[in-house]
Amino acid sequence: MTTDARAQLKINTDRLMASLDELGAVGAYHDEEVSVTGVRRLALSPEDARGRRLVKGWFEEAGLTVSVDAIGNTYADRAGLEPAQAPVMSGSHVDSVPTGGRFDGALGVLGALEVVRTLNDHGVTTRRPLTIAFFTDEEGCRFGTDMLGSAVAVGRIPLEQAYSLTDDDGKSVQQELKSIGFLGAEAVGMRTPHAFVECHVEQGPTLIHEEIDLGVVTGVQGISWRRLTITGASAHAGATPMSFRKDAGLAAARINCRLHEMCAGGEYGAEMRATMGVIHPEPGMINVIPGRVIATVDLRNPDDDAMRRAETNLDAYQQHIAQELGVTIESVQTARTPAVVFDESVQRAIEAAADGQGLSHRRILAGAGHDAQEWSAVCKTAMIFTPGLNDGISHNPRELSTPKQCADGINTLLSVILSLSDEDG
Amino acid sequence: MTTDARAQLKINTDRLMASLDELGAVGAYHDEEVSVTGVRRLALSPEDARGRRLVKGWFEEAGLTVSVDAIGNTYADRAGLEPAQAPVMSGSHVDSVPTGGRFDGALGVLGALEVVRTLNDHGVTTRRPLTIAFFTDEEGCRFGTDMLGSAVAVGRIPLEQAYSLTDDDGKSVQQELKSIGFLGAEAVGMRTPHAFVECHVEQGPTLIHEEIDLGVVTGVQGISWRRLTITGASAHAGATPMSFRKDAGLAAARINCRLHEMCAGGEYGAEMRATMGVIHPEPGMINVIPGRVIATVDLRNPDDDAMRRAETNLDAYQQHIAQELGVTIESVQTARTPAVVFDESVQRAIEAAADGQGLSHRRILAGAGHDAQEWSAVCKTAMIFTPGLNDGISHNPRELSTPKQCADGINTLLSVILSLSDEDG
Repeated sequence: MTTDARAQLKINTDRLMASLDELGAVGAYHDEEVSVTGVRRLALSPEDARGRRLVKGWFEEAGLTVSVDAIGNTYADRAGLEPAQAPVMSGSHVDSVPTGGRFDGALGVLGALEVVRTLNDHGVTTRRPLTIAFFTDEEGCRFGTDMLGSAVAVGRIPLEQAYSLTDDDGKSVQQELKSIGFLGAEAVGMRTPHAFVECHVEQGPTLIHEEIDLGVVTGVQGISWRRLTITGASAHAGATPMSFRKDAGLAAARINCRLHEMCAGGEYGAEMRATMGVIHPEPGMINVIPGRVIATVDLRNPDDDAMRRAETNLDAYQQHIAQELGVTIESVQTARTPAVVFDESVQRAIEAAADGQGLSHRRILAGAGHDAQEWSAVCKTAMIFTPGLNDGISHNPRELSTPKQCADGINTLLSVILSLSDEDG
Repeated sequence: MTTDARAQLKINTDRLMASLDELGAVGAYHDEEVSVTGVRRLALSPEDARGRRLVKGWFEEAGLTVSVDAIGNTYADRAGLEPAQAPVMSGSHVDSVPTGGRFDGALGVLGALEVVRTLNDHGVTTRRPLTIAFFTDEEGCRFGTDMLGSAVAVGRIPLEQAYSLTDDDGKSVQQELKSIGFLGAEAVGMRTPHAFVECHVEQGPTLIHEEIDLGVVTGVQGISWRRLTITGASAHAGATPMSFRKDAGLAAARINCRLHEMCAGGEYGAEMRATMGVIHPEPGMINVIPGRVIATVDLRNPDDDAMRRAETNLDAYQQHIAQELGVTIESVQTARTPAVVFDESVQRAIEAAADGQGLSHRRILAGAGHDAQEWSAVCKTAMIFTPGLNDGISHNPRELSTPKQCADGINTLLSVILSLSDEDG
């Protein structure tokens, strides 16, 4: 097939959407309130395992050679004309948050699969080998550390450390990998691709509001997660004078308000984002002062220096609040990833591919963490974002992408993979 | 027995403590963290049922005539020399909060029982009949309305309304009364005592800090409970710019901070107390903005006018926050009891009894709700408070009263009951 003919290749949108539907039915649940169907495939849960087996089967049906590594990352290799060359890799994740949508992660995995299926349909063998993959526990919702599988694959997190992480029931990553049959034989850290490219839903409102077809991702915000254990004194809400109180719930509330003041103040850049997503008071009764609160803080910033200053300010504020309210605050950093800058040449290749498809695009910063940011430590990397309906909502059953939105992203992915796989070593 | 001899009567402290221990073992659980044993006897639960049957058996063993009314209140009658006279009633509750102590309620019930056992030991028959009792769901933790049984008994809450209250699993009060065998045959509203007196742990730090033996309760603070359902928009914590957010958790935090400012400001009296005990964000994930929060507000004030002003101010603040943060706030009043002033003559009788025992005492306002406040609507009423260790902590497994603290309260109760039962009609 000529380079020109290859440039005309289009994916099979119906097949892509059918695969998304079929994977979306695994761990599906109906949200009564908004009357839509979401997915719950928590990492290494029985639902995640069913999703993994479904996709692994599709990889095999597409004629790919599948290997599972020691952290459960699942790679599917497709031979190239020059087998000695480093492959072009594309992939994402099949795990979800507890109340997730059908596209987050799945589009990147099944999109890469659709690229391979399209190449198979047309008998195209690329110059470099291709690897498509899904990575373990990207969401971090169950074991507390996101991008776990890809972080272990590239050596940022030691395997033994990842194995020993436990969920709320005390089950370890290692135990659960074994239990679902995805504790693989391949050693971690064996793969250094030529380039990595991932297509993902934006998970934000920017593209849909600006009516732009695609985002060319320039990098990923730095992320800082902390888990606060605030200990005060549980006491009777009626009989305890205000001056005697050590209200752990009030301490959490003050910290939450402070987070929003820090964002509004602009001192940490216009892009600082902060969220208290978990607030769990004990005993959690109407007439009992909360004696203990577990709360989480999620900070995002594209500027590592501003992030450090925000963390330091928050540390100081926590100490101040602890003293003022007579509580203790244990603050544990549960995740921290620096801001990531993606490769300029891969971004340009994505732009060229989008132009070739006649699609509008803009450069955009990723607000969420992605597997691609881990792979960017070992090879040139960038990402394609697709817009979503409902203000680009994600981590929510209302997450929704149209067939055109999906196809635009994956046709661009196909074109970029073809161009990257033609590159010299 | 002469009046002088009767004045010398003392309860059997060991027997009282043994009964408290035995009832405390029903629904007992061990709190690992503080290494103490608390109780969990939620109203109309299997544990509450076991506690009820144990105490009912003791009532019968003491020779009392036991009746259960249609809301599960359990009365035990002891004949007097003048059976036509209205009885003196004493009692409290055996249900507990989910993380309760062994004395809250139990001291009032088993103390009244110990008074009867002591009278039995000495062959004393009082002039007026005596009734000792326990009342259904004083805590209000399961079905949302506290003092439920006594409120129905005195006609404040209609029986059918009480029956239709449901717990979080949708089980109704009527269903659960039937299920535990305490849907009694006696009609509600049949009892109008001559006087009502209840002994209860203070559940606050005042007596123990001032080293005073007993509190003579002057009345009960007004209580106002509301349940807030704050609805914003759940969205990705990384990808959603701050300006797009509708953070229901932030709204709850702002309201919590406001409650404490209202107390500190003094505008609603020095005794205003406010607590946000329940804060339940959904979906409650570290990287998802809370789209919905269920939160509760517990307001207390001994001044009904100040309470009304505080409620109005809070309503306005909720509207302000809803507008500012782009959320909706549904606010449901789940309980509201006006401030109660207890009977002066019963308070004087308690003071005289305490003086007779050589015990120090002070007048004190109850911060918590009690069954006695309901009975004060139909007969003259007051309460005896006993101090507790650990700053008088209650609704907590660390709740602790010494044998002397219990005995001081119940010896005084015995003396007051004897004096009230001698009064003319």
